Amino acid sequence: MSNVGRIKSAETWISELADLVPLPESKWSELAFHRLTTLTKPVGSLGRLEEIAVKLAGIQRKEFPDCTDKTIFTLAADHGVVTENVSAYPKAVTQQMVLNFLAGGAAINVLCRQFGIEVVIVDIGVDGEIDTCGRLLRKKIANGTRNMACGPAMNEAEVVEALSVGIDLATAAAKRGRTLIGTGEMGIGNTTSASAITAVLTGKPVAQITGRGTGLDASGVNRKIEVIERAIAINRPLASDPLDILRKLGGLEIAGLTGLILGAAARRIAVVVDGFISTAAAALAYAIQPRVGDFIFAGHQSSEPGHTALLDFIHQRPLLDLEMRLGEGTGSALAMAVIEAAAKLFNEMATFTSAGVSGAVA
Amino acid sequence: MSNVGRIKSAETWISELADLVPLPESKWSELAFHRLTTLTKPVGSLGRLEEIAVKLAGIQRKEFPDCTDKTIFTLAADHGVVTENVSAYPKAVTQQMVLNFLAGGAAINVLCRQFGIEVVIVDIGVDGEIDTCGRLLRKKIANGTRNMACGPAMNEAEVVEALSVGIDLATAAAKRGRTLIGTGEMGIGNTTSASAITAVLTGKPVAQITGRGTGLDASGVNRKIEVIERAIAINRPLASDPLDILRKLGGLEIAGLTGLILGAAARRIAVVVDGFISTAAAALAYAIQPRVGDFIFAGHQSSEPGHTALLDFIHQRPLLDLEMRLGEGTGSALAMAVIEAAAKLFNEMATFTSAGVSGAVA
Repeated sequence: MSNVGRIKSAETWISELADLVPLPESKWSELAFHRLTTLTKPVGSLGRLEEIAVKLAGIQRKEFPDCTDKTIFTLAADHGVVTENVSAYPKAVTQQMVLNFLAGGAAINVLCRQFGIEVVIVDIGVDGEIDTCGRLLRKKIANGTRNMACGPAMNEAEVVEALSVGIDLATAAAKRGRTLIGTGEMGIGNTTSASAITAVLTGKPVAQITGRGTGLDASGVNRKIEVIERAIAINRPLASDPLDILRKLGGLEIAGLTGLILGAAARRIAVVVDGFISTAAAALAYAIQPRVGDFIFAGHQSSEPGHTALLDFIHQRPLLDLEMRLGEGTGSALAMAVIEAAAKLFNEMATFTSAGVSGAVA
Repeated sequence: MSNVGRIKSAETWISELADLVPLPESKWSELAFHRLTTLTKPVGSLGRLEEIAVKLAGIQRKEFPDCTDKTIFTLAADHGVVTENVSAYPKAVTQQMVLNFLAGGAAINVLCRQFGIEVVIVDIGVDGEIDTCGRLLRKKIANGTRNMACGPAMNEAEVVEALSVGIDLATAAAKRGRTLIGTGEMGIGNTTSASAITAVLTGKPVAQITGRGTGLDASGVNRKIEVIERAIAINRPLASDPLDILRKLGGLEIAGLTGLILGAAARRIAVVVDGFISTAAAALAYAIQPRVGDFIFAGHQSSEPGHTALLDFIHQRPLLDLEMRLGEGTGSALAMAVIEAAAKLFNEMATFTSAGVSGAVA
């Protein structure tokens, strides 16, 4: 845990961090935009891959952006609200899935192997001790959150600690030369938390932005809506105060991801945001500092209904829509392959001049 | 060239080939569907990746479908209709881009390197001799097509030869153990040909399905529409006769791709169809034998307006939408990464039992 969190108020500390997120500097994007016109393809014909390359050049402030060293951080934590029966799966699955991650048998492991992505599993708040030799990053702050339907999910110290964990991950990634990082999470109950955050941040009705999560039936969804409405009514979070929303309705992994995204932006590392839960964290980071929007890519469109509201809130268009709703960072992993493709095309394609290809007639 | 084309009428020959495309056998897809329920993820949470795995298992008739050995065939040919001034680029670019492919400097080369895909460049009708040692597959049938605005683009022998080239590519790929193949093309003027095919096959107005191609301005698009309307009026192709449409309005690369798709389906190899031009070939193959639909994946949504009409015609939903319109097989390459991910997830993920993860409560 960062000492800095202990000696300042959370608000002061986070606003100082937010100030570190740089202002855009258009020089690099303009250079990239020009280079795109010289490559052996009709202007604009690589579509969104061209947008990605321009954005990466601006983020990295480089003539040739690099996305070779990729890491996905999958943060795991439990949620007290599961006692309200809001998930199709028992709470024990959080811990069991962490073991599955460590054994390499989960979806995120398969995708990271395929695309040459390092995956770092972080226990930031799993309820239970995980016996394993090495590989798990142990950053447990508490054995999950408290039940937000009865009061705040976290206290202020926990929020600050969880944000710090994420910020420290970004700092360490920067020191290790990672050029593209992705978010992921595991936490039974966390679509309930993300839906509550979405409702408060965007002002949309809870019923409109609450979905089936891992697979609730219709009555389960109705119960989940009722629980979220109760949590909001009891906690009265301030829509204009992202730290208040995070403390009252968030999760330790969501707070960690919020810190990770802010920290990455402050260090000018591009971040690929996974689905619904990760985008809730990105939306909180955006509410703290809208300039993070210049550093993030929305990996994919989740089939959770609240995701679209969050994407609108942060003004991002997802790169992929494969109707996935798994989390773990699986959407980030697939999107990273697309982003790396954009960088490689930008860096490696021949120019009209170098290849001796004629330009457009007009 | 296949002898078979010489001794039978094109219609007889192609209908015999079409009969070789197998009927679906649901056993393997059902097995795959069951396995998906045992993997450590909520049921259905991998979205379209699950559909892909089921389709692959059915195509390959295997318990564990394999997409490791991937090849994209990029067929290049010229179009006589370019004398009508329908492209933003001069005809010489077809030949120049083939040299760029062979030198490894084009977009398709970059993507194939990234995703471990073999790319085979085929000269099936480039106007000009290409001096190069090796690597280019020389299958030139003619120095491009004739101007379809004045009469048929090809004669019957040329269509049969071009179809044969594609069929032979599929046969050779099967013998070499390729498990996933993709289509690609290069041919200045070929969006004009593809738009004409689209108009006749789908019955949509030419103006509605004709786009900017490599970058025409508004007056260029109007000229292109007029040329296509003239080509259709002069040739009077029969909407119900795909070989007649192909001969009168097609291109040598489009005919080759039509043969490739039919041949791959006949050999039970999954084919990833690239954008607008490739989908015109797929639509002709589908019109000849609708069962090819069980063997193809639409790689991406092109930004050419006619593409949507063709996708509707063949009842396929594209996997990606990155607003690309480059051709070469670039959309196939990106989609292959997604399809390979679907196969790997299906094959490599742990089951609830093997990983000791609890199932859903309900």
